[in-house]
Amino acid sequence: MDIQYPLELIGTFVFAISGALAVQDREHDLFGAGFTGFITAIGGGSLRDILLGSYPLVWVGDIWFLYAIFAGIIVTFMFHKPLAKLRKTMFLFDTVGIGFFTILGVEKALSLGVRVEIAAIMGMFSAVMGGVIRDTLTNEIPILFRKEVYASACLTGAIVYLTLNYLTVDRDINMLVSIGIIIAIRVIAVKFKLSLPRLD
Amino acid sequence: MDIQYPLELIGTFVFAISGALAVQDREHDLFGAGFTGFITAIGGGSLRDILLGSYPLVWVGDIWFLYAIFAGIIVTFMFHKPLAKLRKTMFLFDTVGIGFFTILGVEKALSLGVRVEIAAIMGMFSAVMGGVIRDTLTNEIPILFRKEVYASACLTGAIVYLTLNYLTVDRDINMLVSIGIIIAIRVIAVKFKLSLPRLD
Amino acid sequence: MDIQYPLELIGTFVFAISGALAVQDREHDLFGAGFTGFITAIGGGSLRDILLGSYPLVWVGDIWFLYAIFAGIIVTFMFHKPLAKLRKTMFLFDTVGIGFFTILGVEKALSLGVRVEIAAIMGMFSAVMGGVIRDTLTNEIPILFRKEVYASACLTGAIVYLTLNYLTVDRDINMLVSIGIIIAIRVIAVKFKLSLPRLD
Repeated sequence: MDIQYPLELIGTFVFAISGALAVQDREHDLFGAGFTGFITAIGGGSLRDILLGSYPLVWVGDIWFLYAIFAGIIVTFMFHKPLAKLRKTMFLFDTVGIGFFTILGVEKALSLGVRVEIAAIMGMFSAVMGGVIRDTLTNEIPILFRKEVYASACLTGAIVYLTLNYLTVDRDINMLVSIGIIIAIRVIAVKFKLSLPRLD
Repeated sequence: MDIQYPLELIGTFVFAISGALAVQDREHDLFGAGFTGFITAIGGGSLRDILLGSYPLVWVGDIWFLYAIFAGIIVTFMFHKPLAKLRKTMFLFDTVGIGFFTILGVEKALSLGVRVEIAAIMGMFSAVMGGVIRDTLTNEIPILFRKEVYASACLTGAIVYLTLNYLTVDRDINMLVSIGIIIAIRVIAVKFKLSLPRLD
Repeated sequence: MDIQYPLELIGTFVFAISGALAVQDREHDLFGAGFTGFITAIGGGSLRDILLGSYPLVWVGDIWFLYAIFAGIIVTFMFHKPLAKLRKTMFLFDTVGIGFFTILGVEKALSLGVRVEIAAIMGMFSAVMGGVIRDTLTNEIPILFRKEVYASACLTGAIVYLTLNYLTVDRDINMLVSIGIIIAIRVIAVKFKLSLPRLD
């Protein structure tokens, strides 16, 4: 608990940066970039909570998430040039972020009493739907459909977490393992340009 | 009731197939196709229930809907080539599906105590918004705006159902008549390439 | 209160017109235009209420909003040619509309007990998200990202309202001032083609 809350805020901060940076190539003004950062950071968790009927939404009930997002937007405005060059660092941050949010989403869904199958989907949604909404708003083909092993890595990690949880593995170890698997799948897939087969 | 529940599951199954098949021409991997099938199958009913504040969402509360979706996705993965050739059959399935889901959506909205005008809109949303969300995510012009007589057929069927319901027509007969009207409008419109006038 | 309710209905009516007119250049039929008008009119307020968990949604609970939307759609169908020529009048209507809905959104959020930062965001969402959803559905780059000073004018007005409210300024005066500021920013920005800087 002690570590988890600051990690959640850091994850939100990183997601806001990745969202605000995402519009850099296009014709968006500063406000558009900030708005996109905001949507990216809150989108996944908000959709999860709306689908589960869990109110208040995290960022509505705890103002620190909003401050983390503002901080991310301001950092992007000030340092977007060096940040844009740190592609590998940003990729790693994003990858750790989706791993972390997947498992938090799974845990939140479980705490609301839904079945494990639903919890797995909610975990994946928490991690990836912010990016999907961002891409839809900016008229991009959603990341989900482009970077092959993205949401599928999250879903895999969620299933691993739920399996180890069922086997009563210690939670901290379980989180490390399942987040590690998400990161590993994604890093390996990107490094070796692996992708899932198509439907053709 | 006895017939309705399996019919709902079959409808969900068919919607998942039509969603997963929809991405066949584009650059989606298997996961993207499955994700699209999932969104198509749950989108309309979820939006209806979120707008009405009705929790839990159907597929969150009853796991069989998720299994019906998984079955639809797996069937698409295994048989997508023959399925893609069965355009007429798929069209008919989709048409029966939207007719059926329109009336179920109307009934659900009525059961939650909203006015008939709202119930008509909710019925239409149940049937078509899954496809609209699917098309938005895949950067298509939503089906709503392309295939002319689509959502308007659903709205017409919803109004017929509400009218006959007001006249205390037997529910089974009412469902048959109003779903039949949706199917008839859509089949006739497609066969004779009828479309509504434009705003010009 | 006496004035506010008819003003809300008029605002909804105007938003429905602007939404239905928006599809005029494209290949939409009458139903598509009406549907787009409907989404534009309800989108922002519905999103605000869903994010806040406030049920029933305004247009679900009060049928007069639906009638205002229908009236707007019918007026668009009958008079779309002269209306399309009244670009300046429509711009002014839209600008007054977003100013008014921003402040109403702020007030509604405050009445539900959220913090001022959240209320400011909810006010902006109420005003602009209908247009954003409209643009996303019709595959346009959302207005938010095109017309520079749009959502940022709403956010500014919301912050002014909350500041004056904190200083216990009389509500009627506060509304006039903060809506006036939104209108002024937008009119000046469009007249002098001012825009916010970009991230480059």
